[in-house]
Amino acid sequence: MQSQAAFCDRAESPTMRIGGQPYRTIFVADDAGTVSVIDQTRLPFEFELVALRTVDDAARAIRDMVVRGAPLIGVTAAYGVALAMRADPSDGALDRAIAGLQATRPTAVNLRWALERMRAVLQPESAALRPALAYAEAGAIAEEDVAACAAIGRHGLTVLERLAGQKEPGTPLNILTHCNAGWLACVDWGTALAPVYAAHEAGLPVHVYVDETRPRSQGAFLTAFELGGHGIPYTVIADNTGGHLMQHGRVDACIVGSDRTTASGDVANKIGTYLKALAAHDNDVPFYAALPSSTIDWGLHDGVRDIPIEERSAREVTHVRGRAADGTMAEVEIVAPGSAVANPGFDVTPARLVTGIITERGVAAASREGLRALYPEGAGN
Amino acid sequence: MQSQAAFCDRAESPTMRIGGQPYRTIFVADDAGTVSVIDQTRLPFEFELVALRTVDDAARAIRDMVVRGAPLIGVTAAYGVALAMRADPSDGALDRAIAGLQATRPTAVNLRWALERMRAVLQPESAALRPALAYAEAGAIAEEDVAACAAIGRHGLTVLERLAGQKEPGTPLNILTHCNAGWLACVDWGTALAPVYAAHEAGLPVHVYVDETRPRSQGAFLTAFELGGHGIPYTVIADNTGGHLMQHGRVDACIVGSDRTTASGDVANKIGTYLKALAAHDNDVPFYAALPSSTIDWGLHDGVRDIPIEERSAREVTHVRGRAADGTMAEVEIVAPGSAVANPGFDVTPARLVTGIITERGVAAASREGLRALYPEGAGN
Repeated sequence: MQSQAAFCDRAESPTMRIGGQPYRTIFVADDAGTVSVIDQTRLPFEFELVALRTVDDAARAIRDMVVRGAPLIGVTAAYGVALAMRADPSDGALDRAIAGLQATRPTAVNLRWALERMRAVLQPESAALRPALAYAEAGAIAEEDVAACAAIGRHGLTVLERLAGQKEPGTPLNILTHCNAGWLACVDWGTALAPVYAAHEAGLPVHVYVDETRPRSQGAFLTAFELGGHGIPYTVIADNTGGHLMQHGRVDACIVGSDRTTASGDVANKIGTYLKALAAHDNDVPFYAALPSSTIDWGLHDGVRDIPIEERSAREVTHVRGRAADGTMAEVEIVAPGSAVANPGFDVTPARLVTGIITERGVAAASREGLRALYPEGAGN
Repeated sequence: MQSQAAFCDRAESPTMRIGGQPYRTIFVADDAGTVSVIDQTRLPFEFELVALRTVDDAARAIRDMVVRGAPLIGVTAAYGVALAMRADPSDGALDRAIAGLQATRPTAVNLRWALERMRAVLQPESAALRPALAYAEAGAIAEEDVAACAAIGRHGLTVLERLAGQKEPGTPLNILTHCNAGWLACVDWGTALAPVYAAHEAGLPVHVYVDETRPRSQGAFLTAFELGGHGIPYTVIADNTGGHLMQHGRVDACIVGSDRTTASGDVANKIGTYLKALAAHDNDVPFYAALPSSTIDWGLHDGVRDIPIEERSAREVTHVRGRAADGTMAEVEIVAPGSAVANPGFDVTPARLVTGIITERGVAAASREGLRALYPEGAGN
């Protein structure tokens, strides 16, 4: 890591754009160390930045899902510690900040990881040094995420260039994605969408089919918003639609993210991913998962059997939030009253359905051997 | 067909219940020949009957989707002709009634078929006889639909009894269905749900996973409403969820309807059906289509290639209708503004993924040979 001036990360070079203006999802906004984030609860109908001035602001932003996506949550937590150190660099304040931030989303692995990293850096240092060190370390975590996503984009681009070579020159490559694994979930670039952005930057024409991703509409809300903002052509579809499109040759590749990946290449991602992988397999459409190696759990081998799937609130299915005719956000009920509901948040796509795993080190076969070749140090576990 | 008193169908023996009260979706309500239908635009939040007193009332009910489902549309059109004849049994009125009703949903095959049948019966007869004959014929069309659905239920029950025999006695058979192919789409019993109702009547415990069926919510609205009304346990799920449930052994069989079936057993049904068939196949879950033989198009052999798929309005995807907090029905926008949208209404499930086709004559293998064995007269075409 290069050293940085206190309170100043490298937000001067974001890649992703909204309406022509480059942004990151999180950045240090002023010399006083105020942190800005995009309020993702208001997307796609309103774009607004929120200033985080205290550790409590940061905790609230994570808890209320103003920020979401594992990498962005981790970075926000790290900046939350920096905000705490700016106000009070004592040992007690450090412990309180970490405990408070950890409690916002207790099951988020990235959150825990980022907080422990901040603790390891700050605890041995004197209080006087902590504020500047905390901002520098939070900035480093952000930069590492950007670098990993950019590398995923570069490696994914080679895949897309190869697929484009099989098409009529100039015709866009049609990519289907599920949920939001774009830059809004990260700091810049994204994971599943990084190859799409890289292709766009490289002048390779791309078009994205965006699954709306019920029940929480992350595709229709966030993926659509960020692709549109960056100027990439896309089409929103109901989650039911991808199979039909693949049967008719209208999809050249699927790229999805991963919340958790086994050592054998099984991919746990947003519920419904498995169905798209089946359709891709049935129609000889390549199906890629793009993920940072931090999502690989080297101790897991059978994803369907071993990855616990979170059962989420019934209300996510029974009610949907959207923009009402008067322009306000409103919820409407869309299931027969009194219905029982099941709402598992994720499913597991077995490695046999995954054409390849695009990581920051390259593209691996979705197998123990494939992942081991890229990550010999991890596969030893 | 048995003869019937004028203006009196056999609505005295409906099977399906709403809150303990037996109903059909359409019935003659009084001695004057007024026709009652359930207003399906108000389901599931309000249950209301609508009186059709004129042919224009019937046309409006079809056009505004107060009634929907191919069989019910056909029966409503037939009663529309009867209402016209009641007011004016002249040749001109007959022609105007048929033309007006046909124009409501020009592509509905059942609508055209029912109207041509009414014309064939009424045109040769004197004006004096037409009103009574028209009601009798409309009633006969309704009864034939009920009889076909009841037979589908009986044949499907044998399938479900066999599957139940492989389970721990007393544990419910878990059936997944997509969209609404229940009695609300027909007159009584339904098609895909007829075996479920037959099992329930026979004392075989069943539980149904109901796909919400985006973009038009027919599962969450109609299937959930009718199963709940009849007292059958069910669980609503997002369309993304079925694959995960099947991976974990939580589905014993899938049963869906069909809008159009090829001579070779390919099944065109609501968009998303194909994805569930893939998941069923991948997890050795039997996948059945339950359909009246009237949906079989004996001239078609390759469903994916030859069945044209209707592209529906983008607004179905971008907006969703539901009950607002104040109890009124409202629409909210649920896709990023400015998004392109694709909305094909149906997809085709290839016969290779279909375990069997449940018809009014029995259960056929999903193949030319299987269907020909049950329908030697049709397969000759």
